[in-house]
Amino acid sequence: MAKNHITLFYDVVSPFTYMGLECLGKLKTYYNADITLEPFFLGGIMETTGNKPPAAVPNKGAYMKLDLIRYAAITGVPHKHPSMFPAFTLPTQRLLRVIKAQEPDRLHEASLALARAYFVEDRDIGQPAVMVSALEFLGKGRVQQWLDVDCKSPKIKEELVAVTKRAMENGCFGSPWWEVKRGRDGKEDKYFGCDRFEHMAEFLEVPYPGLRAFTEYPKSKL
Amino acid sequence: MAKNHITLFYDVVSPFTYMGLECLGKLKTYYNADITLEPFFLGGIMETTGNKPPAAVPNKGAYMKLDLIRYAAITGVPHKHPSMFPAFTLPTQRLLRVIKAQEPDRLHEASLALARAYFVEDRDIGQPAVMVSALEFLGKGRVQQWLDVDCKSPKIKEELVAVTKRAMENGCFGSPWWEVKRGRDGKEDKYFGCDRFEHMAEFLEVPYPGLRAFTEYPKSKL
Repeated sequence: MAKNHITLFYDVVSPFTYMGLECLGKLKTYYNADITLEPFFLGGIMETTGNKPPAAVPNKGAYMKLDLIRYAAITGVPHKHPSMFPAFTLPTQRLLRVIKAQEPDRLHEASLALARAYFVEDRDIGQPAVMVSALEFLGKGRVQQWLDVDCKSPKIKEELVAVTKRAMENGCFGSPWWEVKRGRDGKEDKYFGCDRFEHMAEFLEVPYPGLRAFTEYPKSKL
Repeated sequence: MAKNHITLFYDVVSPFTYMGLECLGKLKTYYNADITLEPFFLGGIMETTGNKPPAAVPNKGAYMKLDLIRYAAITGVPHKHPSMFPAFTLPTQRLLRVIKAQEPDRLHEASLALARAYFVEDRDIGQPAVMVSALEFLGKGRVQQWLDVDCKSPKIKEELVAVTKRAMENGCFGSPWWEVKRGRDGKEDKYFGCDRFEHMAEFLEVPYPGLRAFTEYPKSKL
């Protein structure tokens, strides 16, 4: 069967993006898909599209927290609302673009490490020292060098802007944003958030395995 | 097994509410639940909570239309975006409160008839003549009388305000809003929209049958 393709545009500041990153390995397997990761800057998207975070409406913000707790129980993915929310992830997302260039095969691992530092360990991932420590497995000196030099290059800055703009032109208004191409006929579709995996399965003509199947974490009851 | 209970707070102006009303019969069966319907006024909720309709952000509005088309394919529920959107449903929701009092067993049927008139037949359900015609099965003269007399009574007006307020106090910020009580232990949970049926199944400890199973309409491929 022809391989499908999923492109994930994301910013690690968003809790449902963290959820998506945790589900990505299984998604790749169940949905017979190659994955491309595209770090972008959510702050720019909110500003340009005029979208507001859920917490701008208090009942909506409270519901989102309830919803995340339920997702955590069903998938087993840990969730703790960060004390510093939202973190300023412009430097973080630039760093992820550098990693995409320098260590493309470790971009998922690096993104997950940053998202876990934020949503599990409650560390401010906008801070260089936190990024260096969370990404220690890539070499402290190298990450520091990327932050000090590469992240400040016009090339990386412009690339982050360009990818963010491209997502918005494709209809994006938040993170995570999934662009999916069906292998069989090249047809494309796009999804926002972490609550359309069943629709994505329908589109890709694969069985939907249910939310519980997307991670190997121990699950709990609601 | 002890029966579960689902209370649906709703306004027929919302497309995902129409979707929810079409799924309600199967939900009742699969989720072993008694259902209580509570018509409220969404306009009041948007105003009081400060929530904005998705279309306030153009990319979000466009995504919602795409999402509705996918839901329509998967569930088979027809969907046509009404030319008059949003309709002014204050009189419509008052009429549904009268029907809840006068013909409680036909409230689901009446709500569906109004929602279908709006989302399938593209008729402005804020208009008395459209309501009378869509609800002909309850007797034209009776519906006209309800509109002319009962809907204008302080009792009905106040009841609609009170139910709307109650939903907001419980955390509601939009329609449909589901309040669910688990029969086994009386534990309660609440959900917004039509995309948490799997979570609801987890909470009620029943198998999730998949979106396609919620209606008897012929389905199509994405």
